[in-house]
Formats: sequence, structure tokens, C-alpha cells
Amino acid sequence: MREAARRVVTLLTDFGLSDPFVGIMKGVILGINPHVALVDLCHSGKAYDVAEAALLLITSYRYFPAGTIHIAVVDPGVGGPRRPILVTCDDHLFIGPDNGLLALLAAKAGSTVRVITATGYFLQPVSATFHGRDIFAPIAGHLSLGAQPDECGELIDDYVRLVIPRPVQSGISSIRGEILYIDRFGNLMTNIARLDLERLETVDSPAAYVVSVAGLEIPVVACYGQVAPAASGAIIGSAEYLEIFVNQGDASRLLGIGRGCEVVVGRPKRRNFDNP
Amino acid sequence: MREAARRVVTLLTDFGLSDPFVGIMKGVILGINPHVALVDLCHSGKAYDVAEAALLLITSYRYFPAGTIHIAVVDPGVGGPRRPILVTCDDHLFIGPDNGLLALLAAKAGSTVRVITATGYFLQPVSATFHGRDIFAPIAGHLSLGAQPDECGELIDDYVRLVIPRPVQSGISSIRGEILYIDRFGNLMTNIARLDLERLETVDSPAAYVVSVAGLEIPVVACYGQVAPAASGAIIGSAEYLEIFVNQGDASRLLGIGRGCEVVVGRPKRRNFDNP
Amino acid sequence: MREAARRVVTLLTDFGLSDPFVGIMKGVILGINPHVALVDLCHSGKAYDVAEAALLLITSYRYFPAGTIHIAVVDPGVGGPRRPILVTCDDHLFIGPDNGLLALLAAKAGSTVRVITATGYFLQPVSATFHGRDIFAPIAGHLSLGAQPDECGELIDDYVRLVIPRPVQSGISSIRGEILYIDRFGNLMTNIARLDLERLETVDSPAAYVVSVAGLEIPVVACYGQVAPAASGAIIGSAEYLEIFVNQGDASRLLGIGRGCEVVVGRPKRRNFDNP
Repeated sequence: MREAARRVVTLLTDFGLSDPFVGIMKGVILGINPHVALVDLCHSGKAYDVAEAALLLITSYRYFPAGTIHIAVVDPGVGGPRRPILVTCDDHLFIGPDNGLLALLAAKAGSTVRVITATGYFLQPVSATFHGRDIFAPIAGHLSLGAQPDECGELIDDYVRLVIPRPVQSGISSIRGEILYIDRFGNLMTNIARLDLERLETVDSPAAYVVSVAGLEIPVVACYGQVAPAASGAIIGSAEYLEIFVNQGDASRLLGIGRGCEVVVGRPKRRNFDNP
Repeated sequence: MREAARRVVTLLTDFGLSDPFVGIMKGVILGINPHVALVDLCHSGKAYDVAEAALLLITSYRYFPAGTIHIAVVDPGVGGPRRPILVTCDDHLFIGPDNGLLALLAAKAGSTVRVITATGYFLQPVSATFHGRDIFAPIAGHLSLGAQPDECGELIDDYVRLVIPRPVQSGISSIRGEILYIDRFGNLMTNIARLDLERLETVDSPAAYVVSVAGLEIPVVACYGQVAPAASGAIIGSAEYLEIFVNQGDASRLLGIGRGCEVVVGRPKRRNFDNP
Repeated sequence: MREAARRVVTLLTDFGLSDPFVGIMKGVILGINPHVALVDLCHSGKAYDVAEAALLLITSYRYFPAGTIHIAVVDPGVGGPRRPILVTCDDHLFIGPDNGLLALLAAKAGSTVRVITATGYFLQPVSATFHGRDIFAPIAGHLSLGAQPDECGELIDDYVRLVIPRPVQSGISSIRGEILYIDRFGNLMTNIARLDLERLETVDSPAAYVVSVAGLEIPVVACYGQVAPAASGAIIGSAEYLEIFVNQGDASRLLGIGRGCEVVVGRPKRRNFDNP
């Protein structure tokens, strides 16, 4: 008999790592299936920030093997009427509260959404404040043992939606977006995807396009090292979105900009680039 | 032959995660038993705070499967005369310094306490500053392989005690406690347990009792969402203790209170609740 | 057939834990080999600090079992001309950028260094900003399945060197070094190893030598508890280097000193020790 592939369960929460909340969820899962591989996606985001967590999840999940079960808990409405849901998307499973956190995944073609009602799997009594432990973790444990999504609850279609601002193209050579996320290095991830840029008019010059942000014009480059240390640039980041960076520096701090800040990609107006 | 259940080893330390100390302990354990499941309980508490770590451990361990081995290292006396001990409690095993960290577990009915003297298991030479690596981790590794507690050392009874302040009931409708712990969200966990509240006179009204803290009267509610965002409330938290919270806010910061602050549960004196 | 030993893969990066970067690397590895044991060495160091990460790696790896694969990513030059390399050292494997991060290991007797050119193992397309995900993680995954170093690329000798300042002995009773690293507790690790101290003239008195740092004379002790709480001392730390500490306090903050600060071990000039 061939050994079954070891299932992976990831955890993304806003619990931080100074409390034992994440560890407790892992204890519950291992009590159901001790052979699972547990991976922390991240836990230290801004508390209660559903949109940011949704963004991190949708840009990360595809790097895990098919069949991975992702638990996401950013859940200010815990204990209230918001429902627990299970989303299937691209051969991955996602468990979390119905507050928009899984909505970007649910909206993808081929995804399904179920309301989790299989109380027989829950840790009893279910607390009013920690469904990560009492509902999401045990559901993940049982799914990792082979429980099927349709054993967890009925299909629904009225899940809570989440709107992430989309960039706007103006003419054939300009696109206007905004900063969505700032990473640990201070790199500023925009909502302008590689595909958005590929829709702009092709110009046969590496300096054909520049990024305007916070009053600066910044070059689009192919690697960090193409600008000098402490100089700023824009690059297609690892999540396939345009990012503003400062080479070996913190762009958010040095440029003084953050989430929501406008970013425009277009033809250069000046001859030389600005530095922070 | 049936595959043995994979053993779980948890780690709770005050080492933080910026140094490799926790990773090194895991390396030592995996060198002894590569098939163990390692779980971080937490590592980022206040350095040297034995009482807080003891509280986190006793409110967390029960969510792990029976047979789990818990290593706890908050150990300002490392290298000195304090003894390493092994506590068995409720089918769980606990390893750590004899400084009060495991005392709440040791005091439970049916628990046993042993002084660890099995130097044959230790990493040699034993350093003066890192018994997590040299004593506690290898003992956990060998226990996970099937070593028995009585192979680790003799039973003792004179372990170092730890006193956690207990709440005091006054009459049939009031109980006075204090804040024991502040979590990552700023929620304030008190030492008043659900069982303590159940000893108060039953009154058939949801607003029968209120919590007085820092000059405010705060309602006792069943879920966070029963107070408006930014309003404060009290709730039985996931550890089964009364907690003060601010809905989607940081109660510790907004109410300006912290550990040791007095909390009284009683009948309301005013008609309306206060907000932070 | 005997079950193969479960391989360990460690990760040391400057990615922090607030972003999903480390989790994504683990997803890639588990997609290749779901049975590997993943251990975080540390991720929260100063961004871009290659020398500090190199120091943490060389003082930590030996506590992992032989055959462990260590991924190290502190990589400001990612996407540029710097090469990915694979170092074998003491039956351990190390993967990372050729920027000095693995140089201390590469310089050890018996080590080998290869440039990683096995693009067939890479995640395609390789991004310009995240080789941890696209090159280092999949190489680790394939090595953990049994790929051999010589399948990853050719031996090289011109890897980038790293110089860590060495202490200087003056006469038979004095040695001058500096602070290399500050840990989470504020302990100050120097570059003076136990072996360096053993070269000094032997004097039959526990107070024969003292440490001069920041204008203070500090006793060399055998455990933290040999100085009073809040007093300072020097001790051979767990990495086998002399460390300056404050008992249950933060030496870096209380003494006001940090990396690069001079430390001299010698005969005492005064009768009483200083406190911070």
C-alpha cells in the first residue's frame, strides 16, 4: 500500500505570536491528525485587517501543494452572526469567517463556497471568542483525514464580498493605481499587475515608462541592483504586482508613503530620476 | 504492526524569535527523534516573567493530544542551583526549571514531580546559560522515543510553588479580582473564572451584573459584537476567565489599565454604561 | 525496508514573520517533499545584515542532525549577478546567495562550494526579487529527496569571502576583542572564544581576570546568578564565546553599548566591580 501524501495545513491569523493562540490551534489539529504538516503563513498583520489578510492569502496559496488546507482567521465578528465558511479554489481548501477574508478566492471561476454547519466536528462547547480553536482548526483536521467538503455544510452563494481597488488605464500609455501593501522591508506593493502593464503600448526602450509616486519619478527596473543603494525604483515583485522599493532601504519610510497612496505608470516627463 | 502515534513536543520560552535559540532546541530534539511534531506555544512574552508563562501554559496544554511533551523555559536562574524538573499532569509531560513555572501544573491532583538527574541524556558539556538546549530539549527527545519519567529522576515534593492571586467573593452578588494577562489585541484577562461567576446569586436578567474597572461600569456580554465598535465589554474568554475588551480596539491602551488592576463584578449602580 | 530518516530543512532569513515569504518557501519545499521536517532558525534579524546572519548560522548548525539542509537568505543582491551557491560542511548542506553569508562555513577545512546552475530544479519563471522561493527552496526540496550536490552545479573556489574581526592577544594576560552580536535579552556576545581565553596565562584565582567594557570592570563568572540581579558580569555563553550580561536585565540598554564596542579581558586594576 502506498503511503498517503502528507497533508499540509497553513495558518494565517492576526493573532501575533506572543500569545499561545496559534499554538493551541495546532494542538487541536494534531489531536485529530498527528501526521499533518503545519505551516505558518503569517500571524503578525494589523489586527482586524480583513482586506490585507485576504490579499496575502490570494497571493500566497498557489505555492503550496494541491490539496493544502488553509485556515484564515481575521475575525472581529467572532461569536456573532457571521458564518464560518469553507471555500474550494484551484484544488486548495480554505476555512475562515464569512467576512470577506475568503471572498477573492470564492470569486474565482470554479470555486465553491459552503457554510460550515457540521457541529459534530466542532470542539464543544464552542467559545464566543476563539472559533479558530473551536471550529476552524477541527474542521481542518477532519478535512486532512479525508472528510469531504460536502460533509461540512451546504453550498451558498451569498458570501460576503470584498472589493480591492483596481487600477485604471488612461489612454495607451498610462495606468493609475495605488499602494495595497507594505512588506517588512518597506517595499510598497501596488495593485498594478504585470498583466496590466503588458496592456500598455509597447515602446522599445528600457526607460520608456516611469512610475510617479509622492511627487517623484522612479525608473522601472528588472532587479533591485539596477539602482544605486538608497535609490528608489519600481519592479515587478514576486507576487506579480508592481512594487516601489529603495535599494537596501525602507521605501515606505524614506518616501513617506503608505497604503492607499496613488501610483501612476506613464511616459517620463523629466530627464533624470529623483531619489528619496 | 500499527504505526505509533506521532508524538507532539511544544515549546514555550521567553527567547523571542529573533535569535536562533528556539530553532537550536528543535535541532537537538530532531537529532534524537526526527519524527516528532514540534509546535511553538509562544516565545515572545516578557523576558524572565515566570508567572505569566505559567499562566499561559496551564490555560493552553489541554488543547494538545494526550502524551504531548511540553518544554517550558523561562529560566533566569539557569546555571545556578535551581533544579530541572519533569511534571506529569493529566497525561501530559512538562519539562522546565524548578522556579514556579510548572508549579500550577504540579499542584493539580494526580500530578507527579521529578527532579531530572539523568545526565546520560544531556548534551555534554552542559553550558551554564542554555539548559533549554542542553537538558530540556534532549530529555523531551528521549521521552518522545519512549523513555519513561522514572528514568529521568526521582520523585520530589519540595518543588518551588507559585501563587496566582485568587478572586474574593463578597456577599452573594459581588466578586473582586484583578487583571492577570494582556493579550496581543489588548484584551485584559482577569483571574475571575466562569466557575467563580456561577457561584454568584442568579438573577434573571442579562444586565444583572456589570464589571467595574478603572472607574468604568462595563456590561457583561455573550459576544464582542454585542457592544458597538470601540465600546468596551466583559466576556467569558476562550480560557474560561472573564476578560475586558474593546470591540475591535485595544482595551489595555484605551482604558489605560494593565496587570494587577482591580476588577469588580457586581450589580449595576448606574443606568448607562461607560465607554473608554 | 527500513524507513529513511526524515530530513530536516532549516530556514534563516531576514524576511521577518509579518509577511508570508517564509511560509511560501515552506510551501514550495513541501510540494516537492511533504515528509521533510521544517525548522525556523530565525527570520527577524536586521534586514540586509549578511555578517550577523553568517554568525548566527555558523554558531547554530551543529545542533542539527547530520544531513540537515540549511537555507539562508539575506540577499540584498537578489536578481543581480550574485550567484546562488551550495556549501557542504561537516555533513551539513547550506544553500544561499554568494555574498558572504555562507563564507565562514565554506572556509572550514573539508568544505566544498558549488555554484547552483541546475535550472531544471528552479521554480519557473524565476522572479527577480524572491530567489528564496524560486531557487533556494526547490533546491532544498530536491536535496532532501536525495539529489546530490554535484547535480546542483560545479565546484567553485572564488566565492565571496567574509571577514569577522578577530580578537588580539597582548602579552600573556590580556586579550582585546569586540561586541559581535546582541541577543533578545540584551546579552552582548563578543568575538572572544573560550579557546582564546584558554591561551591566557593560568592564574589560580576566580577573580584573576576581569572584563573592561564601556569604562566598567566586570567580573568573569560561571553562571548568571553569581552576580546580584541587575549587576553585570561576563560569562562563556552557549555559543562558546565570552558574553557580557546583566543578571535579569538588558546589558545592551543598561550599559549603553552595542556592536563593535571594544572589550578587553585582563588583570583587574580596581578592587571592586562596577555596576551599570
